[in-house]
Amino acid sequence: MAANNIVTLTTDFGVSDHFVGTMRGVILGVNLQANVVDLCNSVNPFDVLDAALTLAQAYSYYPPDTTHVVVVDPGVGSARRPLLVTTTRHYFLAPDNGVLSLVMDREERVLVRHITSEHYFLQPISQTFHGRDVFAPCAGWLSKGVEPAKFGEEITDYQRFSLPRPKPTGERALKGVILKTDRFGNLITNLTPANAPAIFAAGAELRITVGAATVSGLQASYAEGKPGEPFTILNSMGYLEIAANRGSAAQLAKAGRGTEVTVEF
Amino acid sequence: MAANNIVTLTTDFGVSDHFVGTMRGVILGVNLQANVVDLCNSVNPFDVLDAALTLAQAYSYYPPDTTHVVVVDPGVGSARRPLLVTTTRHYFLAPDNGVLSLVMDREERVLVRHITSEHYFLQPISQTFHGRDVFAPCAGWLSKGVEPAKFGEEITDYQRFSLPRPKPTGERALKGVILKTDRFGNLITNLTPANAPAIFAAGAELRITVGAATVSGLQASYAEGKPGEPFTILNSMGYLEIAANRGSAAQLAKAGRGTEVTVEF
Amino acid sequence: MAANNIVTLTTDFGVSDHFVGTMRGVILGVNLQANVVDLCNSVNPFDVLDAALTLAQAYSYYPPDTTHVVVVDPGVGSARRPLLVTTTRHYFLAPDNGVLSLVMDREERVLVRHITSEHYFLQPISQTFHGRDVFAPCAGWLSKGVEPAKFGEEITDYQRFSLPRPKPTGERALKGVILKTDRFGNLITNLTPANAPAIFAAGAELRITVGAATVSGLQASYAEGKPGEPFTILNSMGYLEIAANRGSAAQLAKAGRGTEVTVEF
Repeated sequence: MAANNIVTLTTDFGVSDHFVGTMRGVILGVNLQANVVDLCNSVNPFDVLDAALTLAQAYSYYPPDTTHVVVVDPGVGSARRPLLVTTTRHYFLAPDNGVLSLVMDREERVLVRHITSEHYFLQPISQTFHGRDVFAPCAGWLSKGVEPAKFGEEITDYQRFSLPRPKPTGERALKGVILKTDRFGNLITNLTPANAPAIFAAGAELRITVGAATVSGLQASYAEGKPGEPFTILNSMGYLEIAANRGSAAQLAKAGRGTEVTVEF
Repeated sequence: MAANNIVTLTTDFGVSDHFVGTMRGVILGVNLQANVVDLCNSVNPFDVLDAALTLAQAYSYYPPDTTHVVVVDPGVGSARRPLLVTTTRHYFLAPDNGVLSLVMDREERVLVRHITSEHYFLQPISQTFHGRDVFAPCAGWLSKGVEPAKFGEEITDYQRFSLPRPKPTGERALKGVILKTDRFGNLITNLTPANAPAIFAAGAELRITVGAATVSGLQASYAEGKPGEPFTILNSMGYLEIAANRGSAAQLAKAGRGTEVTVEF
Repeated sequence: MAANNIVTLTTDFGVSDHFVGTMRGVILGVNLQANVVDLCNSVNPFDVLDAALTLAQAYSYYPPDTTHVVVVDPGVGSARRPLLVTTTRHYFLAPDNGVLSLVMDREERVLVRHITSEHYFLQPISQTFHGRDVFAPCAGWLSKGVEPAKFGEEITDYQRFSLPRPKPTGERALKGVILKTDRFGNLITNLTPANAPAIFAAGAELRITVGAATVSGLQASYAEGKPGEPFTILNSMGYLEIAANRGSAAQLAKAGRGTEVTVEF
């Protein structure tokens, strides 16, 4: 396996500063043939969980041998290590802060290296922008065919976190949490068919309370929901979601990231 | 005619979630040579008219055989059909909700197909993200050279809407409407040299009221307007626009999408 | 030297309108092989200084022979000239409004041409969107290998501005200014090791007041700062910056672009 020329970027650098444009330049400066693609550059600032969720929904659709660069890095300049992670299909470059945890949950074979070959870095290395000085040039070299083993030794003591799991609160009741609000105001919970199968079998019996909203049952599509009323749906990522047809469930429910979700079924 | 490798995206998915990054991955997963280009991914959420206007201003500048994907799709998961539309120069993939109406107004030869060849879709098809499961993979295959006829049969009963037209309200007076506010706060009306020629001939006699602002005459460029005062201009898309030199006409006039425009000339 | 296929865009057109998508189409319409890359399209509207700063941080990382297009152009439609600027490594297309001043400060050999060869423009040329009608098509032709000399004659009376310099206000005191607030709320000052060397040597003696915040000393990385408290750092662009670990210094200090910075050392 050797990398293809596709390099995706997942960062919290946003669209209104030079940061991402600089990283694109560094990558192309190393590999003129690179196809630099935005996975998402407006992850919530400093939010490693949001980055992990965003990456997890998208990365697997990319072709084999794609290089994914993830820079949400509140610890930049501290001792946290830069990582190169190899799965059977993809490469990942990211700081060692757990941002690849959901990739690791999904992939069977994961090899993690601590990048120590500083001759691949831009010099001098700043203490504030490793996206430019460490991750982008490594992505350039990797996408150009440099072997992963050249970047550093394998490690096993890397950071990894788990998503919060739903907690039973009665025989037919549990508590979950909102992980994320998307652009449309959809509220994405931590409830999935894998970790809470009973609620997906409950049908019309299902009753969900989040913030100011209480919703019954499960719809099959956004178009089935009544405009202006929140409803529940299994979303395209496989999470239970509170949505509103052509409206913002977040506004209707006065809820957002971290809000508790109460489920009875 | 066979598609080139350029695939443009026009969506309301925004820049802060995984949606567009996922679509890019699906397209590249089918066609590794695809050049995926953002036409605009921050159309107003659920706003088919805004998507139609945005697309109409930009698509014709792309080279022949470009594939344009448009996903503003509040009806996703309902019975609305996915379409493949062919003009003499371009391909369009979009839901059957009228979003291609302005393209159809401009192009002489338009052939519309209902996409039914599900073997080009990602399986299983979600009920909530056809951008990923239907439109992106079809764009990948189309841009790779699959013939349009392979995607489905021609239809003629597709959705189509017209822009609101100005209404005469006197011998030398009419009413229009604001179609869109752009990033600079420019107010784009539905008045064009084609549907209201007299007002473009009126010169200094022209008097326009929109919201809290009244403006006379027609300027030739933004730089001609006095800073801090709204003025009128024929914009680069061919619509009458209320603008302000280095300022927001929308704020000055307290007006926006849907505000009535009164014209005397 | 002939241009490579990379064309970067730095504009204030934002991400929610058709403007940038249209420019990408024009460039690809001229040069089907162009690799159009966003340097940054959300520069502050009408803000030539912000564009100049953004460009200056990123352009030098791109490979030799890249074409950089800069369209922050409040004077569009007036007599201001379109320029083609050549340095030893790069090409720049921009209006003659000083937006390339910081590039000119950094590059030793700069040749400035007034673009007059209108056969490279889209016709008719609008008075409101030279990004589409002038700069994008010229970028297409330039990136396709047309020689700079073909676009117009060399000039020397182009616009150029200097960044505001810090002013001494005592033997060991000076005043600076905030040039920019970035996405994270970091406050970027006009103080650099070149124009204010003494303050970078002052160590813990350094005392900086900006808005409601007073900060002592200089940190080496964001991670060293205490959460919720502003601190000072030499940033990756080489400017003194007031930052906050996982927070917004702009909010904490109630400061932003143009706020005065008082330094004692």
